[in-house]
Amino acid sequence: MPEPSKRGKNMPQSPIRKLVPLADKAKERGIKVYHLNIGQPDLPTPQVALDAIRNIDRKVLEYSPSDGIKPLREKLAEYYRRFNIDVEPSDIIVTSGGSEAVNFAFMSCLDPGDEIIVPEPAYANYTAFAISAGAIIKPVVSTIDEGFVLPGIEKFEELISPRTKGILICNPNNPTGYLYTRQEMDQLRDLVKKYDLFLFSDEVYREFCYTGAPYISAFHLKGIEENVILVDSVSKRYSECGIRVGALVSKNKQVKENVMKFCQARLSPPLIGQIAAAASVDTPKEYMLEVYNEYVERRKFLIDNLNRIPGVYSPIPMGAFYTVARLPIDDADKFCAWLLSDFDYEGQTVMLSPASGFYTMNTLGRNEVRVAYTIKKEDLAKAIIVLKKALEVYPGRTLA
Amino acid sequence: MPEPSKRGKNMPQSPIRKLVPLADKAKERGIKVYHLNIGQPDLPTPQVALDAIRNIDRKVLEYSPSDGIKPLREKLAEYYRRFNIDVEPSDIIVTSGGSEAVNFAFMSCLDPGDEIIVPEPAYANYTAFAISAGAIIKPVVSTIDEGFVLPGIEKFEELISPRTKGILICNPNNPTGYLYTRQEMDQLRDLVKKYDLFLFSDEVYREFCYTGAPYISAFHLKGIEENVILVDSVSKRYSECGIRVGALVSKNKQVKENVMKFCQARLSPPLIGQIAAAASVDTPKEYMLEVYNEYVERRKFLIDNLNRIPGVYSPIPMGAFYTVARLPIDDADKFCAWLLSDFDYEGQTVMLSPASGFYTMNTLGRNEVRVAYTIKKEDLAKAIIVLKKALEVYPGRTLA
Repeated sequence: MPEPSKRGKNMPQSPIRKLVPLADKAKERGIKVYHLNIGQPDLPTPQVALDAIRNIDRKVLEYSPSDGIKPLREKLAEYYRRFNIDVEPSDIIVTSGGSEAVNFAFMSCLDPGDEIIVPEPAYANYTAFAISAGAIIKPVVSTIDEGFVLPGIEKFEELISPRTKGILICNPNNPTGYLYTRQEMDQLRDLVKKYDLFLFSDEVYREFCYTGAPYISAFHLKGIEENVILVDSVSKRYSECGIRVGALVSKNKQVKENVMKFCQARLSPPLIGQIAAAASVDTPKEYMLEVYNEYVERRKFLIDNLNRIPGVYSPIPMGAFYTVARLPIDDADKFCAWLLSDFDYEGQTVMLSPASGFYTMNTLGRNEVRVAYTIKKEDLAKAIIVLKKALEVYPGRTLA
Repeated sequence: MPEPSKRGKNMPQSPIRKLVPLADKAKERGIKVYHLNIGQPDLPTPQVALDAIRNIDRKVLEYSPSDGIKPLREKLAEYYRRFNIDVEPSDIIVTSGGSEAVNFAFMSCLDPGDEIIVPEPAYANYTAFAISAGAIIKPVVSTIDEGFVLPGIEKFEELISPRTKGILICNPNNPTGYLYTRQEMDQLRDLVKKYDLFLFSDEVYREFCYTGAPYISAFHLKGIEENVILVDSVSKRYSECGIRVGALVSKNKQVKENVMKFCQARLSPPLIGQIAAAASVDTPKEYMLEVYNEYVERRKFLIDNLNRIPGVYSPIPMGAFYTVARLPIDDADKFCAWLLSDFDYEGQTVMLSPASGFYTMNTLGRNEVRVAYTIKKEDLAKAIIVLKKALEVYPGRTLA
């Protein structure tokens, strides 16, 4: 039997994947599992998107252009202008979700052995795409005690080597919900400029900023317009993760040429999703506001109640729909597995994401979990009670 | 300005991409362009697929499982059984088109520096995916004079090195329309077994075999079940290229585990496309037969008429909807560009694919083009007249 690739074998499996079969078994035992682990909003997809799909009157579902259908690229340019992001439709390349945008950004900008600096905790799949491209992630670790603020810019500078090609941020952040400040963004800009680096900026949660602090897009930074590679997706803001439509946005001609080669190789992004996404840009403000208010309320409720559980601490996330919380436990991987395989409270349990998957160094985040507030408030309330009860009896609990 | 990746810069641009702007300009000048260059069928998508999309009654268009929705994997298993391909739904991993299946097959099986042997001419994008994976294509060249039969198996064996990890075939073949014989497939099996290689088999054109000769799937070969990686797509057979649904099929547990890591990193294949694809498996036989008969007729018409043009030769393709033809010209890249920028006959011209894109060695196929019969017969008839007239006046024509 031939051996599959080392690349694949070396790719870390997200800790959540090991939990999925345990959750399935819990459900088979009749246990209600509250999913605080997923970035799939429970909110309805906007009606305009559903209608656009229902009303497709094409006879042939043919390939779309490799960079996406023009109406979608035009709509996205219009959308970005609402956030003072000044890009042309020709700067926008439509991808199969934000995932493909990250993949193509790395493939187009990084060669094997090249390095990128990434503040951690960070979205686990960046690592997978870095491994695909043969690139190396150099982490800069932010901590829960400091509310996940960006570590001092000297921590970035220390890591810069001749192989450093870029910095990757996610803003607002998954998993922490942190929103980068103007000062932090300016420092990143200065560093990007000084060393002529790419700034990969994943901004798929921009609609979800809760504190009144401004959302600073990488494209708001002056003087590095050609260094910025923006990663975007319609998934989160319109609750349409399944249509697989994202975008890579760049003003750098050479980068766009490279990206287009990868786009052409895979022929085209999904046509029907693109039609839905283009319609989604016209989602009524009322829908967006309702969704926003719903998350504001869930966030307050979740954080208040998490912090009332003895030994639990969560900073207040400023954006996205996650928080990283510290629990009074020995090991979050063990605890999350135990919740699913050995515990229930009145026939209920919770599924959480161990934070170990969000750090490169696997000694970090051992007592942290990511909690998503993508389920409705009454279920959140029940889930918090379950978590409290679980922490009271978990054999590996520690004194806070 | 930071430098994008060498990987991207080194990726060859398909010759057809350079022709697209010329075709656009020809159209702007009011010239009718017959597209004999594309693998996008003009035939309607089956009504069952369109209806399935129209009738989606979900409120949330959410992520599907990373390996695809179960109803589709079950339907595909049922579909493969019609071709005596005996696989379980758990052997089927749904991908974003056949393209992603090729990409994940390479990423999961090949490490940088690994080699695969590929009979040429071959689908140009295999090269792009090989470059993405850092793998090296070692071509075995088949020739138009021999009707593109598989070169003697000793030609493959000569190329085997310690880094050889697999053989890649496309059957029926794009671009030649060649259908591998039982004897050829058995020889490939023996070689795969002897050296314990992967056999990557792209069989997306299996519905289109015209000569009564049997279609031999790689999965029909005994004793190498764990070596076979089947690449499939619903695009061609149901004329639904735009929905981006394909599959990677394997019985090799280790391979499947590797592939799933890449699948999980990109979260999920397109949901709506999967719903359409599952419905498409129940496309009435009448539709499939009508499509088949249409291609049979176009094929006969095209090949007969091509071979009547002085100096033109095309073997008779046994499958798919392409042929590679030899023209009495100096250089197909130049000729195809000239057709679009310098020629018209009664306000019409044709767009063809220069065959240079299908060979690794760029000295090969210089006087060959790929002709697709994905346009209706009356347009094919006009296109052939235009081609004949063009060859009469092309400055770079040669004596046949």
